[in-house]
Order: sequence, then C-alpha cells, then structure tokens
Amino acid sequence: MRDIGIGIVGGGYMGKAHSVAMAAVGAVFNTALRPRLEMICATTEASAERYRAAYGFQRATADWRLLVADSKVEAVVIASPQETHREIAEAAFALGKPVLCEKPLGATIADSHAMVAAAEAAGAVNMVGFNYIRTPASQFARKLVAEGVIGDLTWFRGEHTEDFDADGSRPATWRNFGAANGTMGDLAPHMINAALALVGPIARLNADIVTVHGNRPGTGGRAPNDDIGQFMCRFANGAMGHLSFSRVAHGRKMGYAYEITGTKGAIRFDQEDQNALWLYLADDPEPIRGFRKILTGPAHPDYLPFCQGPGHGTGYQDQIIIEARDFLEAIAEGRSRWPTFRDGMEVNRIIDAAWASSASGAWVDL
Amino acid sequence: MRDIGIGIVGGGYMGKAHSVAMAAVGAVFNTALRPRLEMICATTEASAERYRAAYGFQRATADWRLLVADSKVEAVVIASPQETHREIAEAAFALGKPVLCEKPLGATIADSHAMVAAAEAAGAVNMVGFNYIRTPASQFARKLVAEGVIGDLTWFRGEHTEDFDADGSRPATWRNFGAANGTMGDLAPHMINAALALVGPIARLNADIVTVHGNRPGTGGRAPNDDIGQFMCRFANGAMGHLSFSRVAHGRKMGYAYEITGTKGAIRFDQEDQNALWLYLADDPEPIRGFRKILTGPAHPDYLPFCQGPGHGTGYQDQIIIEARDFLEAIAEGRSRWPTFRDGMEVNRIIDAAWASSASGAWVDL
Amino acid sequence: MRDIGIGIVGGGYMGKAHSVAMAAVGAVFNTALRPRLEMICATTEASAERYRAAYGFQRATADWRLLVADSKVEAVVIASPQETHREIAEAAFALGKPVLCEKPLGATIADSHAMVAAAEAAGAVNMVGFNYIRTPASQFARKLVAEGVIGDLTWFRGEHTEDFDADGSRPATWRNFGAANGTMGDLAPHMINAALALVGPIARLNADIVTVHGNRPGTGGRAPNDDIGQFMCRFANGAMGHLSFSRVAHGRKMGYAYEITGTKGAIRFDQEDQNALWLYLADDPEPIRGFRKILTGPAHPDYLPFCQGPGHGTGYQDQIIIEARDFLEAIAEGRSRWPTFRDGMEVNRIIDAAWASSASGAWVDL
Amino acid sequence: MRDIGIGIVGGGYMGKAHSVAMAAVGAVFNTALRPRLEMICATTEASAERYRAAYGFQRATADWRLLVADSKVEAVVIASPQETHREIAEAAFALGKPVLCEKPLGATIADSHAMVAAAEAAGAVNMVGFNYIRTPASQFARKLVAEGVIGDLTWFRGEHTEDFDADGSRPATWRNFGAANGTMGDLAPHMINAALALVGPIARLNADIVTVHGNRPGTGGRAPNDDIGQFMCRFANGAMGHLSFSRVAHGRKMGYAYEITGTKGAIRFDQEDQNALWLYLADDPEPIRGFRKILTGPAHPDYLPFCQGPGHGTGYQDQIIIEARDFLEAIAEGRSRWPTFRDGMEVNRIIDAAWASSASGAWVDL
Repeated sequence: MRDIGIGIVGGGYMGKAHSVAMAAVGAVFNTALRPRLEMICATTEASAERYRAAYGFQRATADWRLLVADSKVEAVVIASPQETHREIAEAAFALGKPVLCEKPLGATIADSHAMVAAAEAAGAVNMVGFNYIRTPASQFARKLVAEGVIGDLTWFRGEHTEDFDADGSRPATWRNFGAANGTMGDLAPHMINAALALVGPIARLNADIVTVHGNRPGTGGRAPNDDIGQFMCRFANGAMGHLSFSRVAHGRKMGYAYEITGTKGAIRFDQEDQNALWLYLADDPEPIRGFRKILTGPAHPDYLPFCQGPGHGTGYQDQIIIEARDFLEAIAEGRSRWPTFRDGMEVNRIIDAAWASSASGAWVDL
Repeated sequence: MRDIGIGIVGGGYMGKAHSVAMAAVGAVFNTALRPRLEMICATTEASAERYRAAYGFQRATADWRLLVADSKVEAVVIASPQETHREIAEAAFALGKPVLCEKPLGATIADSHAMVAAAEAAGAVNMVGFNYIRTPASQFARKLVAEGVIGDLTWFRGEHTEDFDADGSRPATWRNFGAANGTMGDLAPHMINAALALVGPIARLNADIVTVHGNRPGTGGRAPNDDIGQFMCRFANGAMGHLSFSRVAHGRKMGYAYEITGTKGAIRFDQEDQNALWLYLADDPEPIRGFRKILTGPAHPDYLPFCQGPGHGTGYQDQIIIEARDFLEAIAEGRSRWPTFRDGMEVNRIIDAAWASSASGAWVDL
Repeated sequence: MRDIGIGIVGGGYMGKAHSVAMAAVGAVFNTALRPRLEMICATTEASAERYRAAYGFQRATADWRLLVADSKVEAVVIASPQETHREIAEAAFALGKPVLCEKPLGATIADSHAMVAAAEAAGAVNMVGFNYIRTPASQFARKLVAEGVIGDLTWFRGEHTEDFDADGSRPATWRNFGAANGTMGDLAPHMINAALALVGPIARLNADIVTVHGNRPGTGGRAPNDDIGQFMCRFANGAMGHLSFSRVAHGRKMGYAYEITGTKGAIRFDQEDQNALWLYLADDPEPIRGFRKILTGPAHPDYLPFCQGPGHGTGYQDQIIIEARDFLEAIAEGRSRWPTFRDGMEVNRIIDAAWASSASGAWVDL
Repeated sequence: MRDIGIGIVGGGYMGKAHSVAMAAVGAVFNTALRPRLEMICATTEASAERYRAAYGFQRATADWRLLVADSKVEAVVIASPQETHREIAEAAFALGKPVLCEKPLGATIADSHAMVAAAEAAGAVNMVGFNYIRTPASQFARKLVAEGVIGDLTWFRGEHTEDFDADGSRPATWRNFGAANGTMGDLAPHMINAALALVGPIARLNADIVTVHGNRPGTGGRAPNDDIGQFMCRFANGAMGHLSFSRVAHGRKMGYAYEITGTKGAIRFDQEDQNALWLYLADDPEPIRGFRKILTGPAHPDYLPFCQGPGHGTGYQDQIIIEARDFLEAIAEGRSRWPTFRDGMEVNRIIDAAWASSASGAWVDL
C-alpha cells in the first residue's frame, strides 16, 4: 500500500469531481496506490475551508503557492481557471512534482509550449484532463481502430455540441468573453483530443468560426466570443475529416459524438448514450450485416470493477475515477501517461490553426 | 376526369419507378387527373418492348425523338442518362410539352443553363426529380422551418452517405469514371437540393473532394472519380452549414440525413428511419424538454391517403407517387411546381462551385 | 403473359389498398401474371361507380353475387366487413374460384370452420390477408428462426398496440360495439398470426381482456367492446410466450412489435421502424457482441425489385403488393399459399380460447 | 457536521458498492451528515481484512455479531446472502440500530414478516436496497405519474431481463439452485418494486414460471431453479399489468425496462439507456405529438450535484450514492424512508403469490 499526498487547486466543479474520484479510486480499483487528500486551495480562506470539509481534505489554503510547496503534497491537480495553469504547473515542476492539469493546457499556445518545456525539463509526470475519451466505449473504439478492425481510415466526423448558451436573450456573463471561454477555447479541445487519439495527427485544416449571439444584453459594447466552430481536415494518414463544435445546439446536452469509417467497417458513438458503441463490419455476411449496438461491459477496457455486469452503465464521474487511477499509476511508475502535456499542446496548436484559417479563409498546414 | 398521355424516356431503375408511380397515382390520390401510359423508350427495340409489356405502356420505341414528337404523348418524363437530358428536354420544350427530368438536371452547368432557358422560353411546365425531399417527414420539416417554429436558423448539417462503392477491391465500372457519376455528381444533388429547400440559398462555400479508391482493379490507367466530398458554407440568411457526401461510408445504406438548428429549437431527420421526424422545442418546460420522435401520419403534408393511420409508413416508391401527382397537377394548372429546372440549375451551380473550391482551396461566392 | 380477372368486394380502405397493389404488381415484379381489374363491388351503385373510376376497374356493382358469378372474374378478393366473409367465400368456392380474404377469416369460429371446409371441399386456392408479416424484415426473421440461427426458441413476446381509440371522451362509433370490432377481434389477429408464423403452434394460453373506456359518450346503454387484451402462452415447442394488444396505447401508432429469444441469440422488430431487423448472435466474440441493426435490402426475402439498394425502405402499400403477387402465383400454380384459410382459422381459434380463458380465469388448451 | 459510524456486513459486490458510496456521499451532496467507515465483516478474517484495507474501513471482523454489537457502529448495512438477512437485522433492531438491507428482504415470506415486525417493534429506521429505481429518470417517472401528467393509468408493462445465464452448456453453480437464487427470487424483486412504486398496489396476479436449462452439466441430479417468469396482473387502481423476468434473454444486459400508459399520455424507460426518459403527452397538438426523449439533468430529481449539466450521465454507482444519502438522512431524521422493510415485504408477498399461481394455474388475490 502506498499513500500519495494529493493537493488540488480549485474547489469548484472540476475540483469536486477530482476530489470525489480520488476518494473512490482505492476501493474501486483495489489498487495499492492510495491518494491522501492533503490540501485544497480556493480563492478565499472561507471557501477553501468549506471545500475542505465537504470533500474530506486535511488542510485548506487560499494560496496555491503554499499548496504546491507543501512537503506532504506529493502531486498536484490543477482545476483552476485556464489563465492560472501555467504558473502553477511551472511551480510544481520546479519541485519535480507530478501534475494533472485540466484541459485546455494553457490559456495561449505560448503558455502551452512553456508548460510542456517545464514538464520535460523537470522530467516530471504530466497529464491533461480530457475525461470523455476515458469511457470504456471510447477506449474500445481506440483499440478497434488500432488493431485495424475497421481497416484503413477514410473518414472521421466528430462533434462536441451542447446548448447551454443557446438562449440569446440571456445576459452575457464572463463565459461570453475571451477566446479561452468560447466554443473553440472551451468545448473544442475535448473532441480535437478524441480525433487525435482515434485517428492520429492532423496534417492540415480549413476552419470557419462564428458568433451567433452578438447582441446579448449586458455586453456593454464588448464583442462576445464564438458560439459555433467547424473545420474540415486531412489527417496525416490520409483520412478526410470534419469537426464541429457548438454551445448553441438546441437539444444537445452532451453531443460528444463521432463516426469513424475505414475500408473494412465503421464505428459510431454518442456520449449521450455513453454505454453503447456501434460497430459495423463489412466482412459480415450481407444478410446479417448491420451496425452492432455493443453495450460496454467487463469485456471492454476500463470497465469499472464495481460494474460487475455489462449494461450497468458508467456515468460522468466514473471517467474521472479512471483518470485518477491513471495519474496515480503514472506517479508510481514515474512515467507520464496519455494524454500528456505534449498531447494537450497539440490540441492547442490545432485550435490556433483553426483561428488562423477562419481569419484567412485558407487551409493551414500543421 | 382528365387523361394525360405520358411518355417515359428510359426503362431502367428510374423509368420503372416512374411507370409504377404513374399507374398508381389515380387510385392513391383519387385525383381526376389520370396519366395514360402512352409510350416508353429504351436503347433497343427489344428492351423497349420488354419494358412496355412489364410496365403497361401502349407503345414502345428505341427513338426518343419519336416519343417526344408523338401527338398522344402530352408530357415527357426523362429517366435516361444525364448526357441525354438536355437534348430531350429541348426537343420537348420546342413542342411546348411539359417535362419532368430526373436529377441532376444537366450533365454540365452549361447544359443546365440551356435547359432552363429552353423551358422558360417555351413557358412549359418543368420539374426536376429530387424524390427524397418528398417524404411527409421532410415536407413537414420545411413547413416547421417556414413557419418559424424553430426560430432563426443558425446551423444546418446534411449528409448523403451510402456504401455501395466501399469495397475498393471491386473492379471499376462506368460508375467510377466521369464527374457526373461520382459522389459529387450523382449523390450530392439530393442533399444540396434539401439544404436549399430547408434553409434557403447558399451564399458561399469551401469544399474538399477526394477519391478514396484510386487503385481499383480494371481502371486501365484512368483516374477514378470522387468517393467523398464535403463543404462548409454560409447561407444567405447567415446560418452556418456543412454538407458531406460519400459512397464509401460503410454501414450507411440511405444516409440522407440532416439536422437544422434555430434560435428556438432543432429538427433532425434520417432517411433510414424515414417515418420519423425529431423536433426539439426550446420553449417546452425544462423537465419535459427533449427531442420528440414524431411518426408521420395524416396530420402531415403528403401523407399518402392509403396510409390511413400514422405509423403505417411510407417507402421509396411512395415518394415517386407524390412526385407524379405534383407533375400531373402542374400540367393541369399550367404552372411549374417546385423543384423546377431553375431549382435544379441552382444545385448544379453549387456543385460547380464545390469543384472550384476544392481545386483552389479557397472560399467561393455564389 | 397471363391475364387474371380480379373482382374485389369492398371499396373502402382495404379495397383500395388491394386495387392499387393489383395495378402495380406487374411492373414491380415483372411477372408474366397480370391482374385485370374486372369488377368492384360496394354497398351502393353510386359508391361502386366512384371506386371503379378511381381505381381503374372495368365494371362496378352493388351486388357481390353478380361479381362472384361474373365469368370474367376469375378470382375474388374479399375486403368487405367480417360478417359478410363467409357467404361471399362460399359462393366463390362453389364456382371453384380462388379467394383472398381479409383478416380475420370469419366473424365467428363457426364461420371460419365453414370457410375452411368450403375451400378444401372445392380444392380452390385460398389465402388470408395478414399483411404486416410480409415485410422483408419479418420474412427474414422467419427465415432466421427456421434455419436455427438463434437456436431453440425459449421466449416470444409480441404486441400490436395503437392509440386510435385512446381518447375516452370521443363518442362511441360502430367500432366500439361487437366483439369483431374490438381489440381482440380486430387488432389481435395480426400479431397472433405473426406468433404462429415465427414460433409455431400455441399449445395453451391464459388471457385477460378489458374494456378501459366503458363510459364513452353515446353508448346509449350498450357495453362497449374491449380495449386491451393480453395472454401468456406456451408454444408446442416449449417456448414461453406473451402477446398483448391495445388500441388505447398512447404514443403507439403501429406498435406491431416482437422479440424472439432462442438458445443461440435473439431477434427484435418493431413495425414503426419497419426497415430494420435487430439480430443478436450469442456466438459472436464477447467484445463485439451486440444487437445488429440490419437494414433490409436486396439480400432479404421479398425486398421489392424497385428498391434497388438497401435502405430505400418499404412502406405499408409494399406489403400489399407482395400479397397480390403471392395470390396471383398461387392461382397460377393452383396451390394455396401461406397464410391459408386454415391458418386464418387457427388465429380465430386462439382468439376464441383467449375469450374463454379471460372469462374463466383458467388456462385453456388448444 | 454529524458523523455516523457505519458497519457493513458483506464485502463482495454489493458490500463494495455500498462502501464506495458511503465514501463519496459527503463530497457529492455536501451534506453535513458524514458516514464513518467503522467496520466491515466478511466470511473469514483474511477476506475481511482485505476488504477493510481496500475500502478504507477502520476495523474488520469475521463475526457479524461483533459488528452489530460494536458501540461505534451506529448503523448497519446488510449486504450478505439472503439467508442471513433476518438474523442480522433482528440483532441490529434489538439494539435499536438503523438497518439498510439489500433486496430481497427475507429469504422466505416468514423471514420478511419477522423482519418487518422486528423493525416496527424497535421503532428503528429500516430501508431495503432497491437501487435501480433511484435513477433520476425513474424518480422523474414516479413524479410525472403522481402528478397525473399521463392521467389515470391503464397499462403497465415491466421487465427485468439479462442474459448472464443464457448459455445452457455452462456447468451449474450455486446460482442454479434454491428459489432465492433463481430469476423470481433474485431478479424479479427489482421490477416488482418498480411496479409498486410507479403504479401502486397489485390486487391480483396470474403467473407462469419455467426452468429453461433443466439439464445443465453438473446438476448432480438436482433440479435447477427458474430461468424465466412472467405474470399478468391487475393493480388496485384498475390498471392492467404484465411483468416478466429472465436471466436467459440473449442480448439483454440490463433490461430493466417499463412502459406506463395512462389516459393522457405514456412513459417509457430502459435502464440500458438510463439517462433518457421517454414521455408522450396526448394533449400536444397532433402534428408535433411524439415521444419526447428527455435526457436527465439538473431539472430532474436526484440528479447528482457533480453532474452539472444535463447529458453528463449517471451510472450504476450513482444510484448507490443516492441510496446512501437517503439512508443517512433517514437516520438523522429518525424516520424510515421508502422503500422500507414493509415495502420489501410486499415484494416478497407478490413473489410468493406468483409461485402459488404458477403452481395452481389460477389467479391469486393479494
């Protein structure tokens, strides 16, 4: 049994998700690695103390530098706003401490570059928190593709669509300003990461990005950020692709969905029905050929041990528990696991290229 | 009761579909307009005679000029290869005869222009055979959009994907050569027509088109035509769009599918489940808000009269029967009905722009 | 080419469906057998003449005896109310003429017995019009079961549910009185026939039948007929079963649906998505095991020839065209095809047993 | 903040699920009630110690009497085999300690009666662990029914079907013997509880129960228990019902599914897609009437707080966390929450009646 002291920066939505995951990972995976909830950091002492009590941490602080420097904090989870990622990560790496950083990696491509450099210079374990890709269904999709089950890839279409900002009469909030909080900055990273994981590197792309609700009440003259983005692309392996992102897609709640076509079959997935993976095999005899609706179960990667039978279903939080386990194992092995900071930087690089393409109207090589 | 003598050029797949539709339209719609199957034309006298007997025509011919000129043939259906469309249509219009021409209108944009000019100069009834858009579900989608039920449109995504050419080891046939027979020439028109009908004119687009199976056996050194095409676009009303087309999409048999998002809701449709239209209304109370799966029935446009109850279902052929009725009514009224030759030309114009954009890598204005 | 003179008794919904089907069957199947629409019979001379003109018959009559006796009427389709089936069929058989009779066979079990006896005594071709079972999907399901693809059957669940009578405030009509017009008399026969076709003979059953809307306005003191019925059963092959029927099932438009489980797999079908058959094969490797959604196409039985590709879809009317072809071929061969009057009588026998069981509360052997 | 010392009897599948849930409930619900994992009991000291370490308990024991009597154990969770439920519960109640007992309540109806009597005599908090009913979707279904949204209920169909025992060539295990381990004893309780929760008391039923694989290898001459069961029923409110249960239903992994029809609408649910509830409202205008696919989210009961947005999805374990919260709150309030032991006994009573009916072939009143 090995205890690992964990410090989490940020007590909001993702901070809570990581705290709950860390508390559960031991029992769920029966691993000898045990996170110890050492310290949590929030913006004020009061809120930090509130999170501490609620999530079961030993100590609280309003100063992330104290947390990073604390000798009992052996690893740091960054769940604070994007703008803070770089500084915190650099401080942790300076001490050689492992870091799990929420996506997107840096607030700018420069930040991301610096973070990768710091991690690699320190030789420290580093991971980025792209959680949706961790469902058993998506992990199985990766495996099927990697094993060539659907042949050479010819087409990928992915989307991440939600509708939380579809009501244009809702007054603007902080979410409506700043590139980092727009659709390309906030939603796109998940599906771009999925595309890279499932298909491989993107060679070039051509993007179009738009603000749908430019006249929200309360903008005070400022231009709101982007609501919808899309790009056509070619992957390095020759496959053609299309990715689209929206936060104004009425009816879509978790439209993290993709289809992958190859020369021998096809795969389809939609996170709104996250326990099912659809697989079409061209070699099946024609009369009984059709998409198979595979319900994930013990036969699939990372199906949680307490989900004894297939069909029990995994939820949002289960993805974070898997992520927590991977981070702990990476720490124990002293070797970063996918997706690393470098993977996260690649996502930033693609978003940057999309912005450039949308501005110029031309294809951009990566 | 008014008899209308019909001549059909082409006895193959679409010729048969139109013949069966014409034979059924009277009983189905109990209309006073009755098609009289006067003459059918095929490439040889023998095949024409075979079709005549099979489909119930009075006479057969291997010369389309005879058919067009025949005094008892009052209206002409063109179901022959694209290359022949222009000449036949021009001959019919020269005699003032109404024409229903299979899509795509002309083999080239020049042909399409000439056909529109001929039709309009003659003042003759003219229609193009885009059949899929005629399902009760798609007609209802048009109505919902037109009535503003889903608000101002912000996004359209359409695809027409099939997999009949997905096997790259199958030797090349005539289908694999010539732009008219490729994915953009043959499959794309249907969904482009749907986009125009559902959303309105396209203002500009940016396309990418590819041949996946460039090395089929039996190409004899010739370059096969395109397998997949896609384009991003902006509609004149400001909505963003994406259309994609494929004949190598394993698992897709009739992937004529679209999603339309507006400021007040969304619509989804897939021809593989052609009796259902999915509608999301943002104004529904949140706890009971969700996509409604509406099964088409008597409450929807063009639900066939012999489909007494909802859920009975319409099939491929039913679309052609509706088309036949529309053509007969247009003849009786002396006024062309949507989609006219001009609508068909617009589709050709968009395909042309897509080719140009794919070649240049730049946006093309329409 | 062989012409067969057809007389249809009844010009309403099913009379029209059969007329349209007969007019289409030649072209669709390119068969040498050609129905000739000789005479149609309706309750008044005026309505008969109206139907004649609408459907394309040569002659009309208000006297079914004239139709049956007419020398040019070589075969009779009975699409009139149940109460009239027996008399018409007996008259036709007395002349040795083939009969296609709409379901259910007789208005009473005695009528059905008499009709079977008359048909068999005459040695005349006889068929019952259970149309839904004729979709390519259901014909393929029969084939899969017959070939043992899903092993020995262990369970069958079928339902036929609609909601046309779900509104209890709607005043009573003729449909609300008389056992023949209730749910067991009118809806149940379709799914019972399906159960027999898919699984085999029923050995015993235990039923419960109920009137939900006993107080409709306008009943005038009469007790309305049944709205919901169900029975548990055991098939002769040992499989356990359950069938249910409803005309008050809100949301169901054509809920003709079944699931069949065997020792090696399972099949699911729902007529509301009539182009898909779901097949689960227990021998598939576990990670890629799941229900396959098979879209019917040319590889399946009775997929209509004008539906060139899979996914084109079949509709309600297509089933009747297949039925028409089967009837014509049966006439040409001089041999009845499934389902025969004897099959129809078996359905009546089961409905009778269900009524008896519901009354006694006990199992009834068949 | 109030600590509550928890003792769990049983460290297997359900013991683990409860342990993980107890560890998470504080952070998830930010409740002031905090479970303290005091002691775990397993069949041997070694396994108990293993579970203790894995799940994070303070102490371990192989003697449940020690656990129940321990002064720091304030509440007991029973997750051991059915045969042991009664004795453990009675011991806990004798000390006035609250009990959460896994379903089904007692191994026999007599045991269940005794357990209810003991709980009520002691005035102690008591709950039964029917977890599936706790999804936001099913809790919302209860609410919709209770509020009359779908009117007076007319029909309920429920099933709990899985396929873990579908392979008849698999040698028999302990699961294949003893009524408590068969389909009626083990699977049926979940859906019977759901029927009672959603529709209300059952007035009478008529059942049929069967062993499909009577000849498994390794039975050693003993008769295996039941594989499939079904019953028709009438609820006290007059609704007609049907419930079925199977562990040999190939293709079904978590076929906990139901449909509820009322005079004003209908509800459908399937645990294999546990984040969606389907609702049909008869009062919607006909053209836009259809089942709404509602994705559960913050607008629904018991949607977990860390699932910020709709569509995030809940999994198996989330149900247990809700159950843990309910148990803790019940303890704090000193008042049992649904489902209580009395609710659990009602389920046992229905299973008993089903066995009796299956044996006699007659309806049984409850």
